[in-house]
Amino acid sequence: MMLRDIGEFGLIERIHARFGRTASGSDITTAGGGAPGSVGSAAPGPGLGIGDDCAVIERPGSLLELVTTDLLIEGSHFLRDAIEPRQLGRKSLAVNLSDVAAMGGKPRAAFLSLALPGEIELSWIDAFFEGVGDRLSEAGAELLGGDTTRSKGPIVIQFTILGDVERAHLKLRAAAEPGDILCVTDQLGDSGGGLQALLDGVDRTPAVERLVRKHLDPRPHLAEGAWLGSCSGVRAMIDLSDGLESDVRRIMERSGCGAEIEVTRLPTSRELEEVCAEQGWSAWELAVGGGEDYALLCSVAPEQYEQIAAEFQREFGRELHAVGRVTAGRATAARSASPQNKAPHDAPFRRNDRDEPVYLQDGRRVDPTRRGFDHFHSE
Amino acid sequence: MMLRDIGEFGLIERIHARFGRTASGSDITTAGGGAPGSVGSAAPGPGLGIGDDCAVIERPGSLLELVTTDLLIEGSHFLRDAIEPRQLGRKSLAVNLSDVAAMGGKPRAAFLSLALPGEIELSWIDAFFEGVGDRLSEAGAELLGGDTTRSKGPIVIQFTILGDVERAHLKLRAAAEPGDILCVTDQLGDSGGGLQALLDGVDRTPAVERLVRKHLDPRPHLAEGAWLGSCSGVRAMIDLSDGLESDVRRIMERSGCGAEIEVTRLPTSRELEEVCAEQGWSAWELAVGGGEDYALLCSVAPEQYEQIAAEFQREFGRELHAVGRVTAGRATAARSASPQNKAPHDAPFRRNDRDEPVYLQDGRRVDPTRRGFDHFHSE
Repeated sequence: MMLRDIGEFGLIERIHARFGRTASGSDITTAGGGAPGSVGSAAPGPGLGIGDDCAVIERPGSLLELVTTDLLIEGSHFLRDAIEPRQLGRKSLAVNLSDVAAMGGKPRAAFLSLALPGEIELSWIDAFFEGVGDRLSEAGAELLGGDTTRSKGPIVIQFTILGDVERAHLKLRAAAEPGDILCVTDQLGDSGGGLQALLDGVDRTPAVERLVRKHLDPRPHLAEGAWLGSCSGVRAMIDLSDGLESDVRRIMERSGCGAEIEVTRLPTSRELEEVCAEQGWSAWELAVGGGEDYALLCSVAPEQYEQIAAEFQREFGRELHAVGRVTAGRATAARSASPQNKAPHDAPFRRNDRDEPVYLQDGRRVDPTRRGFDHFHSE
Repeated sequence: MMLRDIGEFGLIERIHARFGRTASGSDITTAGGGAPGSVGSAAPGPGLGIGDDCAVIERPGSLLELVTTDLLIEGSHFLRDAIEPRQLGRKSLAVNLSDVAAMGGKPRAAFLSLALPGEIELSWIDAFFEGVGDRLSEAGAELLGGDTTRSKGPIVIQFTILGDVERAHLKLRAAAEPGDILCVTDQLGDSGGGLQALLDGVDRTPAVERLVRKHLDPRPHLAEGAWLGSCSGVRAMIDLSDGLESDVRRIMERSGCGAEIEVTRLPTSRELEEVCAEQGWSAWELAVGGGEDYALLCSVAPEQYEQIAAEFQREFGRELHAVGRVTAGRATAARSASPQNKAPHDAPFRRNDRDEPVYLQDGRRVDPTRRGFDHFHSE
């Protein structure tokens, strides 16, 4: 049997069977916690960070440590001819910074492992590092180390980011509760539309240019993440890396709940609508299934939603878009009937316990045709 | 101009010109320090970890945090057919654990970024993770997260290790002083001999098998590193990854000193001597220039050497081999003539300030013919 037969999620389950207490999601974050000052203590700890965007490590004092890693390989994650080196530097860091934002934290230190072919131009390298420097400065983080090596094949870029978060501000995927309002911090689908435009070789109108730029140079929502982290009414949070469809499932799986998305409420840009009209694409399906928007998805306690949304508007000058709500879901319903009324953070939900997110258009169910990414299945 | 024109060290200097306070060595560790609890504070801090095996991050309490990363790419760092997957799992972790050992620290948490082709056998993956698990258990560390992705080309393995060290036990490359005894914690050259045997397709006698095994499955000297860390008479420390010749230069560059190596005192195994005699290789040149032994090289205050060596012998049942001594060197001599009698940790040594290590055989100078690795120049 080969890896392609089990796919990425199968691989992650396999890794967890060996090392993990448990997790789900696209990464292999397995644990966190332990006694203050100890990294990876053998004690099970509070289960923080399991299956989340970052691993969470207990530290003495008021701050928790956050750690996230991401690997980008030329040919799989980017094409050298399709992205400017400065954009690549910015983007390869942005995708990691976004994970820290999703936990309510602040990035502090970056470590870069970089493999480059010997025949790459120095001007390319300089521009790449210019992009890395841009994003580091914006984030207030520093490059503290790493590793360089020669690649005989593709460029390989791997960042590890260390960050921190006030204990009380930490947001996890597992904290959503039925009734919560599901919110996103920005318009969705631009990046997916930009990727589609690149793949289809669509003519570069100004609207197409904007979508492509959103795809090639996404902005991590660091300020938004830290701000939402400080709101006690914000419960679960995740960044939209693989697409709303995939990422809302991760909240559902970790929180043991269901979700309804009202597709007419998904915020999309004028440019995306324009390009979709021209190309015959569906804007809401790109908003649901297109990845790499790197906005944040959070669940907000319903009684606090109005106040938080109003303050968000004042703080950031745009809407905290309510796109749906958290529902009880089968797993939650089963649990509330049992004496144990809270899901243990470290109990996996089996496939058949899982609820599907429900998409509603004016009260009727609709089904998106696009799916989130599974690296080993999709080609 | 291309990357191959400036090589790995040129690239590292370029990265430092942009981000670093400074460093030298094969990695791009740039900084560390800052206020307790802050990662990558903007304050220059004590300069800990600059150009060392790990970055050092200040934390509240008695422990400092250590961070190290390493990237292994199929075809450049290993050949899938030449190493068992379990050995590969063990080795890819060992090379990082060794960096923590070199700082006197203990590894606590591992993060793995792994890119695999879809057509790889699950049995290969399972064996790889078995090897990772072996080394994690031995080290008392946990896999806390990471990232999996598909590779259309080579297997890519990247570990980030977090560790910690008692503040007083931290060992840096910059701490060697003229007169110190240079010591190694094990026999040298076996790994280099094993690699040469693999490259030359030498017949697999039992002696050759042992060298090959030392190359494919090196042991990180964690217990030795932590023990030497606790000895105040041990000053500078580094792990022997690129070979004694390269690694002693790093101590020299960071400490601003020279070094003499007495080649007749280099400990070599009976097996290496046997294979060298058969193949016409030079055992001492492999001990000097062959990489990946992953023993530790340290400098010991001369007045404490005898006691430390005797205790090391009791603790580990083998010798702490004295192989040479630290000399004043031109840079040190120039500095002692100036009012400023200590090298600032963050001042780079220019090429022309650098001393060459001196190799002595019965009092006469000899020159090793092999050189350490530079990933972008060497093919």
